Amino acid sequence: MSQLTAADFAGRRARAAGQARRAGLDGLLVTPGPDLAYFVGYNPSAATERITMLVLPTEGDPALLVPLLERGDALQSRAADGLEILGWRDGEDEYGVAARLLRASGRYAISDSAWAMHVLGLLRTLPASSYAAFSDVLPMLRAVKDAREIDLLVAAGAAADAAFEDIVKVAFDGRRERDVADDLAGLLRAYGHEQVDFTLVCAGENGADPHHAAGERVISEGDMVVLDFGGLKDGYGSDTTRTVHVGDELTAEEQEVHRIVEEGQQAGFEAVRRGAACQDVDRAARRVITGAGYGEYFIHRTGHGIGMTTHEPPYMVEGEEHPIEPGMCFSIEPGIYLPGRFGVRIEDIVVATDGGGRRLNNTARDVRIVR
Amino acid sequence: MSQLTAADFAGRRARAAGQARRAGLDGLLVTPGPDLAYFVGYNPSAATERITMLVLPTEGDPALLVPLLERGDALQSRAADGLEILGWRDGEDEYGVAARLLRASGRYAISDSAWAMHVLGLLRTLPASSYAAFSDVLPMLRAVKDAREIDLLVAAGAAADAAFEDIVKVAFDGRRERDVADDLAGLLRAYGHEQVDFTLVCAGENGADPHHAAGERVISEGDMVVLDFGGLKDGYGSDTTRTVHVGDELTAEEQEVHRIVEEGQQAGFEAVRRGAACQDVDRAARRVITGAGYGEYFIHRTGHGIGMTTHEPPYMVEGEEHPIEPGMCFSIEPGIYLPGRFGVRIEDIVVATDGGGRRLNNTARDVRIVR
Repeated sequence: MSQLTAADFAGRRARAAGQARRAGLDGLLVTPGPDLAYFVGYNPSAATERITMLVLPTEGDPALLVPLLERGDALQSRAADGLEILGWRDGEDEYGVAARLLRASGRYAISDSAWAMHVLGLLRTLPASSYAAFSDVLPMLRAVKDAREIDLLVAAGAAADAAFEDIVKVAFDGRRERDVADDLAGLLRAYGHEQVDFTLVCAGENGADPHHAAGERVISEGDMVVLDFGGLKDGYGSDTTRTVHVGDELTAEEQEVHRIVEEGQQAGFEAVRRGAACQDVDRAARRVITGAGYGEYFIHRTGHGIGMTTHEPPYMVEGEEHPIEPGMCFSIEPGIYLPGRFGVRIEDIVVATDGGGRRLNNTARDVRIVR
Repeated sequence: MSQLTAADFAGRRARAAGQARRAGLDGLLVTPGPDLAYFVGYNPSAATERITMLVLPTEGDPALLVPLLERGDALQSRAADGLEILGWRDGEDEYGVAARLLRASGRYAISDSAWAMHVLGLLRTLPASSYAAFSDVLPMLRAVKDAREIDLLVAAGAAADAAFEDIVKVAFDGRRERDVADDLAGLLRAYGHEQVDFTLVCAGENGADPHHAAGERVISEGDMVVLDFGGLKDGYGSDTTRTVHVGDELTAEEQEVHRIVEEGQQAGFEAVRRGAACQDVDRAARRVITGAGYGEYFIHRTGHGIGMTTHEPPYMVEGEEHPIEPGMCFSIEPGIYLPGRFGVRIEDIVVATDGGGRRLNNTARDVRIVR
């Protein structure tokens, strides 16, 4: 896998500055997390009360503001290639320092997860300035992936698939959800994930809660079990879900619900086309499930983008009219949740191409039998 | 260890509402992280683009706004005792839902680390409302610990002390800093820490950099080694530092510098009195070190608060005039850093009581000899 170069980062910054200019903004303010890693290849170990911020103006040169204590680390990173790095000192007014890099009445887009105290500090220092979150004004900033990024997402998806093929071989019957979750986390790491974000193991009635994690419940014969897992491999995300069954005696209802979700997932996948709206993917999946009479039990959006994080724009949800562009990567993950009984969810990561969608998860989507 | 009860959380909320009222605010907005855990005993697994927020008004009842997906978890948590939990649904305007809980022209304090997108979303929905970060308007919100919290901090400190008594028995000479750091992390976990925040092992010249972590440097006979370590045990923090020496042949200068830091630490400890300013602790420790001619080598503040995080207000720093109150817990950790040569730091967590300070770390503070 080729490393990103200083030119790649400079290219990302130039494209983003262009997007910001077209959106009528004076620039972007990028704080620690995936945004900063994306634009400068540098990420401090923790976002803290001490402000770290890339100022990327639509006119003029970008600069990275860092606490003086961190300046050494920043200078050793890839951020140092072609970027001014300004250190501010404990006790100094950091917002005063930042303000010198901003237009007094400028309008800026800022990272969604920037700390509220920082945006409020900027507003206090420059009362005529204004701010909007990336998601609100430049939601697609990191949504279209380049070829290198897609390679990394393909590799992360393949690693998650390998973990799934191994997990269905472990014992389920008689073990706790959290034991299987631990196995799954170990497999993701074994297949190259440096970070495991979640390993949901939701047996029986717990499967009806889409955000159940994994607990003390003992899995037993006859349970449907939702497995939803992902994390980061080489900095890019995986996220896949399969619903398995303990033993091969499924009820007619379990088979039926699983079949409907599988068809909904396929319909969502087939709706992926250049220029279709993101909401069309949600509508296509939902139409199948609603048509089968289970609409009220599909209680979440159909999908979310993935890249340097496991959840990011674009969102496949009613109301998201942004057109799908080649290079966008996102999940398609409809589900049916029958309270107190069981749930089924099926999720693949899909990349939009000129010729429709391409799945980055390729394990069979039918009900796998575990023991 | 007694569990916190619904009444404890309700008491915290009532005290905070009183503080907010006295500060002229209409309420507090509390988002995931230690603030939310403190007020409701509930913390979603991750802060995300989906808003989760406790609205704690100065008049009227508090309510917890959560994504509908998380409502089940929230209901099962201690947050459900005596608190309305409102779920908002994907696709709904979450800021519109939140706005119904707020005064249109209200002024609210909000968690420092709330996402910028959320505070900007509230500002967009209620343009006449205004917001300020907890650190700026209510810095002492979680600073005074109650008896149960102090019990937990005592236990965390005792666990860190036990780890220290074991680490001085391991081999130092010939091993890398990171090997000793790994041992130390293992010991913290073995003594009950569920989270290790840092295990700094800084040998020889690395001890002169207060932010050095632990690296490839091989420790050898004659090194002074700074050990600074802490994390969370049962949700509450530990943080202690001792400086050890490899072998028993200390130079006169090493002995002298260590003795001065020890005296400075003791002077800081003795400055802990109800009603003294936080900066008095810094001044007392600094006076000793400056008086001995090493003032320019004591390059950081003397201490920081500790509780559900390992770094929080109050800060023991020049300019912090807030009075010390019984129940405040904080570090006292002066140091002397001789560039390119060695460093010494000694740190204890101290709780302020009616009768002065009480140390929560109780290992001997003189130079321990390791091998």
